[in-house]
Order: sequence, then structure tokens, then C-alpha cells
Amino acid sequence: MAEQLSREERLKLIHQNLQEVLKPEIIEQVVLKEDRPLKIYWGTATTGRPHCAYFVPMVKLAHFLRAGCKVTILLADIHAFLDALKAPIELVQERAKYYRFVVTSLLKAINVPIDQLEFVLGSDYQTSSSYTMDLFKLSSVITEHDAKKAGAEVVKQMDNAPLSGLIYPLMQALDEQYLDVDAQFGGVDQRKIFTLAAEQLPRINYKERAHLMNPMVPGLAGGKMSASDPDSKIDILDTPESVKKKLKKAYAVPKEVNGNGLISFVEYVLLPVSALKTKSKGRFVVERREGEPLIYDNVDTLKDDYAADTLTPQLLKSGVTDALNALLEPIQAEFKESKEWQEVAQKAYPPPEVKKKPKKERKLGDRFPGVVRDQVKPDDRVQEEQEKHEDGLVTGLSKP
Amino acid sequence: MAEQLSREERLKLIHQNLQEVLKPEIIEQVVLKEDRPLKIYWGTATTGRPHCAYFVPMVKLAHFLRAGCKVTILLADIHAFLDALKAPIELVQERAKYYRFVVTSLLKAINVPIDQLEFVLGSDYQTSSSYTMDLFKLSSVITEHDAKKAGAEVVKQMDNAPLSGLIYPLMQALDEQYLDVDAQFGGVDQRKIFTLAAEQLPRINYKERAHLMNPMVPGLAGGKMSASDPDSKIDILDTPESVKKKLKKAYAVPKEVNGNGLISFVEYVLLPVSALKTKSKGRFVVERREGEPLIYDNVDTLKDDYAADTLTPQLLKSGVTDALNALLEPIQAEFKESKEWQEVAQKAYPPPEVKKKPKKERKLGDRFPGVVRDQVKPDDRVQEEQEKHEDGLVTGLSKP
Repeated sequence: MAEQLSREERLKLIHQNLQEVLKPEIIEQVVLKEDRPLKIYWGTATTGRPHCAYFVPMVKLAHFLRAGCKVTILLADIHAFLDALKAPIELVQERAKYYRFVVTSLLKAINVPIDQLEFVLGSDYQTSSSYTMDLFKLSSVITEHDAKKAGAEVVKQMDNAPLSGLIYPLMQALDEQYLDVDAQFGGVDQRKIFTLAAEQLPRINYKERAHLMNPMVPGLAGGKMSASDPDSKIDILDTPESVKKKLKKAYAVPKEVNGNGLISFVEYVLLPVSALKTKSKGRFVVERREGEPLIYDNVDTLKDDYAADTLTPQLLKSGVTDALNALLEPIQAEFKESKEWQEVAQKAYPPPEVKKKPKKERKLGDRFPGVVRDQVKPDDRVQEEQEKHEDGLVTGLSKP
Repeated sequence: MAEQLSREERLKLIHQNLQEVLKPEIIEQVVLKEDRPLKIYWGTATTGRPHCAYFVPMVKLAHFLRAGCKVTILLADIHAFLDALKAPIELVQERAKYYRFVVTSLLKAINVPIDQLEFVLGSDYQTSSSYTMDLFKLSSVITEHDAKKAGAEVVKQMDNAPLSGLIYPLMQALDEQYLDVDAQFGGVDQRKIFTLAAEQLPRINYKERAHLMNPMVPGLAGGKMSASDPDSKIDILDTPESVKKKLKKAYAVPKEVNGNGLISFVEYVLLPVSALKTKSKGRFVVERREGEPLIYDNVDTLKDDYAADTLTPQLLKSGVTDALNALLEPIQAEFKESKEWQEVAQKAYPPPEVKKKPKKERKLGDRFPGVVRDQVKPDDRVQEEQEKHEDGLVTGLSKP
């Protein structure tokens, strides 16, 4: 729990590894002056299966929880449902249950307290009368132009973009009020939406919130190039052999640190997870057939070694494989013991029955992908949903 | 009642004086084949005081009622409220009551049965959970582009147009479903919104409706030029002297039939009202100091006489003054006897306390004006609201 951390330590943990914070004084006021739990929310549309990239925002949620924050996870089922109306609402709500299992298990695996964690389904309040009226109000003070600008980085810009893409940013603002938080967390791709929320909520007499942003992190097992490769995503439930196989094929240019998803995973997941688990400085260990293991307690040394080829791609992959499998192990054990989770998984992601269609390129980082894609036949629904998550960048938000 | 009219007569009366009907076969199916009351709705945002131009759509509602239709009037209080958030919802709802009094009285004055007339407040259902979910659904199948195009004639096209202007056309479509009608009626300026409704409702599995459109009719007491002149509107409650004075100043070029609001008023209000009252061919009578009165039972003869200057602007004004005052008389008598109506009028339109501000030009024909105008100080609210209706064109819809 947070009791052993001082106010300053909590504040530091809240900010750790973030790329940007808007209105940090709101957070300081709550943590340093009011000395109460910071209320913070993170939203995720419950679409495709959460995979290992999900650890990136999880680490921040873990930081928030360890820092004594009250964390709300918005399972945005309506958004998922409205995403081109591909998945029926019942399916989407099964997926919300699946997300809940995964997130809870991930956080437990990271060894953080989850008694201050709350899940909220979007459909529980986003069609209420007061929410709707507030949405109408917001829509009459926010211009088309500003709504469009807000979504520019998360909604594909195209002629036939649906109107929902302009409405979602308003909902994301309103959610801050209805989830009663001090701050919203997301990837830096959400910046324009966050700015809209900060500017516009006060126009309908709600207060401005702080916004915390994770950097955009390259995907673990593949760069942008491999977006169409099913192996570029490592599922939470992948076997140790499958993880090893996928990571072997991962995109990693020798000596090239930039854009290396493995290094990012060490930086944003493995080192922080190790620190959270041990409640001390994190460690990342690479065993070698010959010689002593390479042991890193910070990413800069690791980057230096990688640039010098002391830490080769093969060694790095092997180290990440070991650490990731160790991280996944308790989660998979929990899955194997939970009949309920297994049933939910079956309902949420029934095995696809059709063969793969050619992939379509998608803009990255859409938390609430509000884009009409091709007409969908009833039987390729699941296939479509899965394709959505096969790109190479990981946001602090969603993008499971 | 409709019982004395044949199916064909009812169908003819429904279509009388309309400029355009989309999917007339829907109406024929109901009236000729199913032989049941056609369910039709007309919406009006409850903003400024309804004035005499309101008689234009009222005549059509009277036709529908006489033809045995079930007529629903949507008092769009939410739209009025959201119109730049100028009027608080309580004020707007008082205005809805005022509209109800006026419309009922107008229709009684025209001598049509009102037992098949129903009023519905927008706020009674437009924030319900199912409506909201359907609005979300529509927004995810309708493109920004199509929503914008739909509102092009009724929403001012400008850079800082609020997002609500794109949402309103979707609501207007959804209202057809939620008011459970076969058809929607409005001015021809609503054409693009009607087309959107017809095209898009089936995409969320609701049926396409018929759409009936009144022509755009020049204002009674003033052309576009006099939009800033308070005398260009004749209030339902104006005294006979005031009506006479205002009509004396009305814009009427001798021999010029086109754009003459007085002739239009005879065509679209006075002749049809006379026909409805007497249940026979209508008559419009112009008394003369010298010679016999001029008596018209169709507008073409009147137009010929006006073009020939047999019917001078002065004579026309005098004839319209007499007929209009006769039409207003029972309405004003009802107002004088109804304490409730008087109280509502006082609450809905409290006397303005500030001096007039310079007028701003507005695009015509907006049923749900979704445009952010200047910042409004608390005390010029009523003034602003009144200015909204001082333009010269009258739609079949709203524009009270």
C-alpha cells in the first residue's frame, strides 16, 4: 500500500516514465496539499484481445495504485460496439468481462494492490439522461472544427469518416466528469482530445482535469513493417514456446536502439515491473551460455551495451523471452484455474471460422476507433476485430 | 371530421399546396389501401414568439387533420435550449406551453377538429437511453460529410459552427421513429435533412418515411430588406390597429407579383383558411370605397388583377388587413379569457429590459438553429431570442 511512501515519493511515482503532463499543479494540489488519493481514469475500448503491449499502460496503472491513487478503468463497450457496428453489443460486453479478467490478473502479477481499482462499463452511464443532455450541451459549445482537430491523431482522417468520430472526443471529456476524477491518463496520441477536454468542460461548468500521457512505444515483437504478421502480437495466453518463437522473429536491427520494441519493452515494462515487484530498483537479467549474465538496473546501460553489440539482438531476445514468460506465468496459471475466465474467453473471442482476408492499413493509436471500414459480412466479424490490433506501435492507452 | 371525405379527397387535401413530396407511395398505401389515419409529424423549436407566418404550416396541419391524419407536433425544447445555450431550459419549456396554446388556438380558429392532434415535448424522449443509443448508432453509420450536407440549408455554414449542427439532422431522422409516424412535414428547406432521414434510418433497421414539403413563402409584412424592422412581424396578439399599421408599411411593389408576401399570404393562408372554414371553395374579399368589392376564389385571378393594377397594393393591404384581423379575433378573444395562457405568455416572454442591439443577419429557414452566436449577457437573452425571427421568409416548418 501507499502508506510507506511519502507524498513526494507518490508524486514522483505518478510521474515516472510519462512523456507529458498537462496541469501538473492539479495533481500536486491533491497529493501534496490535500493529501488524499488522486482519482484517475483510463479508458479502453473493449475490442480485440489484449496482448502484451497492454503491459505498457498497466505499468502506469500499477504506479498509480502503488502511489495510493484511486484508479478507474472505463471499459468502453459502447465505443467498441459503435466501431462500425461490427460486433453486437452482447459480444462487446463479453469482451469487457475478458478485459477485466486480464487487467486484474496483469496488475496482480505486477504485485500491486488492487483494492483501489474500479472498473466501469461505459454503457452503465453513457446513455443516461443527464449524460446525454450534457453531451448535447457540449456539442452546442464545441465547434465541428475543434472536434475534428481533437480527433485528428486518433481517428483516421478520410472523406467517409463517420460523425461518431467527432462525438467520441466529447464523450471522452464528459467521462472525466461522470467518473468523478481529478485526472485522465492515456497515450500521448490522446493529447488533442485531452486538450479539448481541458478547454471545453469548464464551458458547461465542469472543472478542468489534469492529463497524464505515456509516450508512444514501439511494439514488442514487430515494427510497423510486420503489422500484417500475426506473430507480431504476443497474446497474454501464448505458451512459453510461442513467445520464444515470436520474439525470435521480432524486428531488431543490431546496434540500432531507436525503434527497437524489445528495448522499449524492457524500459517501459520489464524494468518497472521488476521494481514494483521487489519494491526496489528494477533488474533485467540476460543469461549467457558463456560468461556471467548481463544485469541491468537501468535502461541507459542496456542501450549502451546494445549500441556496442555487447548485448546482441539474440541475447536481448533471449533475456526478454525469459522475463516475459516469467511475467506471464502467474497470469496463465490463474486463467487455467478460472473456469469463469475460460468461459468468458470462449464467448468473447470465439474461434474464427473464415480464412484471412487481406489486411488493411490502419492509423495507429485510436482508442475509440471511429472509422467505418468495409462492409462486414456476419462471419468475418471476429477476423476483422483481430486485425485491428496488429500494428506495431503501443500507446499508453488502449490499443490492446 | 374526415368521414365525409373520400379516400381520394383525403389524399388530395394532404397534398394541396405542397411543393414536393418524397415517397408519395407510402402515403397512398396508408390512405388508399390501408384506409387508416396517416400518422404525420411536424417539429418546431420553441424559441421566439410565434407570429402570423405560423399560419402557413398551420394551414397544412389543418389539411392533414381535416383529411383524418393523426398529427403530432414536436415541441423541440431541447433544440431551443441548445441553441447557443441562450435560454435556460425552464424558459424554453414555458415557451413550449405558449406554442401549444397558440397552435391549438390557431387550428380552432381555422375550424378543424383537433382530437387527432398530439403535442410531444422533445425532452420527454430525446435523452432516453434507447434514443441515445440509436443516436450513437446513427452517428457511426452517417459520415461527417453527409451530416454536414444535410444541414447545409438550415444551419449557417461557418467556420465556428457548433457540432450540434451536425447532430440535429440525425435527431430529426430518429424522431420519425420515436414519434412512430408514417411521414414528416416541413418546409422545402428541410429537403436535405429529409433525404438523410429517408436514406439512413433503414441502415439502423428502421423504416423509411414519406416527406411532405411546403414551399418557401415570402414574409407577410416585409421582404428581406426589412428584416431588422420590428414591424415586419405581426404577432398573433397584435391589435387590429397594429396589424393595419404594420401592413400599411409592408413591402409591395405595384404590379409585381413575385416576392409579394401579401399575395403569398392570401394564397397559402387566407384562401385555404376560408375554404377550411366554409368547407367549400375559399373566398378572399377586398372592399372598395367606390364600386363593388373585389372577390377572389383563386389566387390566379388575384395575381392577374394585381399585375394589371386593378388590385393596387393599397387595396390588397386593406383586404389582407380585414381578413387577418377577422382570423386573429377569436384567437385573441381566447387569449383574453384564458388566465393560464396569459400567465404562460408572461413567463415565456418576459418584457425585455435592455435596449436593442444591432441586428445580425441570419441564414433563413433554420428549424433548429444550431449556430453559436455572440456571447450573451444574462439580460439580453429575450432580446436575442426575438431578433431571431425577424427575417422575411417563411418556411412550412418552424420559423415562428
